[in-house]
Amino acid sequence: MNTSLDPRSATGVRVPTHWYNVIADLAGYVPQDRKPAQQLGKRGLRPQLPLSIYRQSVSDRPYIEIPTEIRAEYERWRPTPLVRARRLERLLGTPAKIYYKYEGASPSGSHKLNSAIPQAYYYKKAGVRELVTGTGAGQWGTALAMATHAYDLECTVYMVRCSYEQKPQRRTLMELNGARVLPSPSVTTEAGRSLLADDPDCAGSLSVASSEAHEYANEGDGVRYSAGSGDNHVLLHQTVIGQEALAQLAALGEHPDTVVAALGAGSNFAGLAMPFYKDSLETGRRTRLVAVEPKSCPKLTRGVYTWDHHDALGNTPMSKMYTLGHTFIPSPIHAGGLRYHGAAPAISWMYHEGIVDAVAYGQNEVFEAGVTFARAEQVIPAPESAHAIRHVIDRAVRARETGTAETILFNLSGHGLMDLGSYEKYLGGLLEDDSAAEAEVEQALGKLHRAAIA
Amino acid sequence: MNTSLDPRSATGVRVPTHWYNVIADLAGYVPQDRKPAQQLGKRGLRPQLPLSIYRQSVSDRPYIEIPTEIRAEYERWRPTPLVRARRLERLLGTPAKIYYKYEGASPSGSHKLNSAIPQAYYYKKAGVRELVTGTGAGQWGTALAMATHAYDLECTVYMVRCSYEQKPQRRTLMELNGARVLPSPSVTTEAGRSLLADDPDCAGSLSVASSEAHEYANEGDGVRYSAGSGDNHVLLHQTVIGQEALAQLAALGEHPDTVVAALGAGSNFAGLAMPFYKDSLETGRRTRLVAVEPKSCPKLTRGVYTWDHHDALGNTPMSKMYTLGHTFIPSPIHAGGLRYHGAAPAISWMYHEGIVDAVAYGQNEVFEAGVTFARAEQVIPAPESAHAIRHVIDRAVRARETGTAETILFNLSGHGLMDLGSYEKYLGGLLEDDSAAEAEVEQALGKLHRAAIA
Repeated sequence: MNTSLDPRSATGVRVPTHWYNVIADLAGYVPQDRKPAQQLGKRGLRPQLPLSIYRQSVSDRPYIEIPTEIRAEYERWRPTPLVRARRLERLLGTPAKIYYKYEGASPSGSHKLNSAIPQAYYYKKAGVRELVTGTGAGQWGTALAMATHAYDLECTVYMVRCSYEQKPQRRTLMELNGARVLPSPSVTTEAGRSLLADDPDCAGSLSVASSEAHEYANEGDGVRYSAGSGDNHVLLHQTVIGQEALAQLAALGEHPDTVVAALGAGSNFAGLAMPFYKDSLETGRRTRLVAVEPKSCPKLTRGVYTWDHHDALGNTPMSKMYTLGHTFIPSPIHAGGLRYHGAAPAISWMYHEGIVDAVAYGQNEVFEAGVTFARAEQVIPAPESAHAIRHVIDRAVRARETGTAETILFNLSGHGLMDLGSYEKYLGGLLEDDSAAEAEVEQALGKLHRAAIA
Repeated sequence: MNTSLDPRSATGVRVPTHWYNVIADLAGYVPQDRKPAQQLGKRGLRPQLPLSIYRQSVSDRPYIEIPTEIRAEYERWRPTPLVRARRLERLLGTPAKIYYKYEGASPSGSHKLNSAIPQAYYYKKAGVRELVTGTGAGQWGTALAMATHAYDLECTVYMVRCSYEQKPQRRTLMELNGARVLPSPSVTTEAGRSLLADDPDCAGSLSVASSEAHEYANEGDGVRYSAGSGDNHVLLHQTVIGQEALAQLAALGEHPDTVVAALGAGSNFAGLAMPFYKDSLETGRRTRLVAVEPKSCPKLTRGVYTWDHHDALGNTPMSKMYTLGHTFIPSPIHAGGLRYHGAAPAISWMYHEGIVDAVAYGQNEVFEAGVTFARAEQVIPAPESAHAIRHVIDRAVRARETGTAETILFNLSGHGLMDLGSYEKYLGGLLEDDSAAEAEVEQALGKLHRAAIA
């Protein structure tokens, strides 16, 4: 068994006092949205953000203070452990040092609670009665269910149908925390009904769930839509991860050459990576920032940098981002949290400018990495996190071949204890390969390019 | 959300340097076994314990030093958190203070790793190649799979059939850690085949799984049976829990009036309670020690104090203990870890002497308590641990009615993330009541009494 670092006594690192707002440091990037035509029609969206969160999302200050009440909540489980994966290193025979930040240690089992708590806090203060959201694998839905229950808000979650079926324990976990969970597409919204009319077996996607949740929010009294990723304020809240990791590594006399995290819309990636970007601005130290995505939903590595909506029906404003098209429904892979058609606008800009890198992997090679890690380190990674692990293992093997003593940090964004059904399928050789998924990506890209020409 | 104690900085408590051996302090108790008649026949059992563990199990010293290598392993996750359940207290409107020790924070998700690690360590040193065991809900099987994988031993687990079917994720988790998992009764042993011949739908029990594992151990080269509860050395290894809790509470200026833990065979209960018994001997402070068992398997509250075997077929030596009879197969309740016919001999003696108390609850009232706790504290308890919570809630409500400011400590021995299927059944009103189970207990007791007269 590996002897991990003791994050409790070794480093003395505390929970950050501020969130880091990368937008303030992106010279040349202008955060802006374009309103869709439908905004003027009967489906016009009401503003969803309370002023407190809106101000955060457009702030030009690099640091925003975390309210004392929220810090007290964070301190229930933060700082999360920083662990050196020594047994994995030995297994791979690599000179690379592999560290991971373990966000699975939160009460909800993932990093998502870092933003669910402040959102529930601010919405409650703004007099909201209920929050509604969309969730893929259920990590965000679980976090929001817990946070809303704690702040005495109601909670409705549209859960992408393929994940709803793959991970029934997730649904039970959300219901245990008082949330109402509906499979998406559902018959409860016009958006859902129109998609089901086209395809009664529709697997759903995060953009579909988002359309449904927005429609629900727009029609209920005292209901607001709460975003689990992509938006600036969500990226902001997650930066406690990277700030802690930077300090924990510094306390050990370490600094990473490479920082790796999976990317769905970007909250996990930004949460770990952005504080290292800030560090590079301040100290001149260069850290490679690598986002990892699935081959079945490769918005950064294959998508187009253009204006697009955030939801499947095009009711939300458009942002400039890397996208596969808001109507694209990715293959029902088991990393449901990564099945989103676009990357956060801020991260898209950074990728476009060459500040961050990206790489994509197939489903089976990702689960193979997850199993290798689980056996060595005795932590089952969520399939989303296993994407990061795949890249870390590949880098560590390359380091062995080239004799490079690279220091790698990755985000183990959530545990996979709700995903054991997917692991069982992998162990039984029953997971699909990516050929069909990649053909669907080609189709979506063809459609996007034709639209651009037209 | 509750603000829990920070176990990391608030108390400064370290992992204990010694295990506490309660046997040394039980004046009048003589640990002894009677060999069964079959020992002389063809199924005669080989000794299963290496000398190192055997010495621990018969030691008359109150403290046994924990080897440095094992302490280093413990330090990966120990001391486990001691948490005050403030939100639960508020919800109940009780003047009682409720603390819990959270053993679910271990890599295996329960207290079981506390004994799996030293056992794998000592067996490996003794040159053993493979360990075999029986498991109920799978908490022990998971811990042993992890520990054997880490010490490069093979592992075979006979998992009680009803749990094997209720908790498929548990099986996957053990297999992910390299163990071979078989449903018990199985066709791989004579014991299993004879039980299946009688009842092809046999739900299995811990005593049946134990019979199968003993047979497997007896017939393989370099294979030994590893016990997950009941035996003195297992009780011993678990005392890190209570020693830490005592010190963590002392650092807060607290001392519990009552200590509560679920009891299957007794490792969880002994692990928390025995150090408080030692404290009462040393300081004269009285702490009530309460074991909680299911109404469907009430060995302490309903059973007979007599000589009995530990396995269903009667191949193991007999010990004097509270038992429902070694052939008793409890109703397939969802707290599979408590479905064992007897209580550890040492705990049985203490119960007989009035040193420990016991109480029994039905399945639905236990799950109700588990849900109440999960919603308040955001930790899903294993159904076994929910037995303790049921009693704690009842005591806290009584404290409100009588105005008593009781301080209660209980062991949250494992998380229930693998048990969400059972919670879903409870939430859907699909869990059986205890009437059939209690009738089966009556029958078993009738059989035991008739045997005693004959």
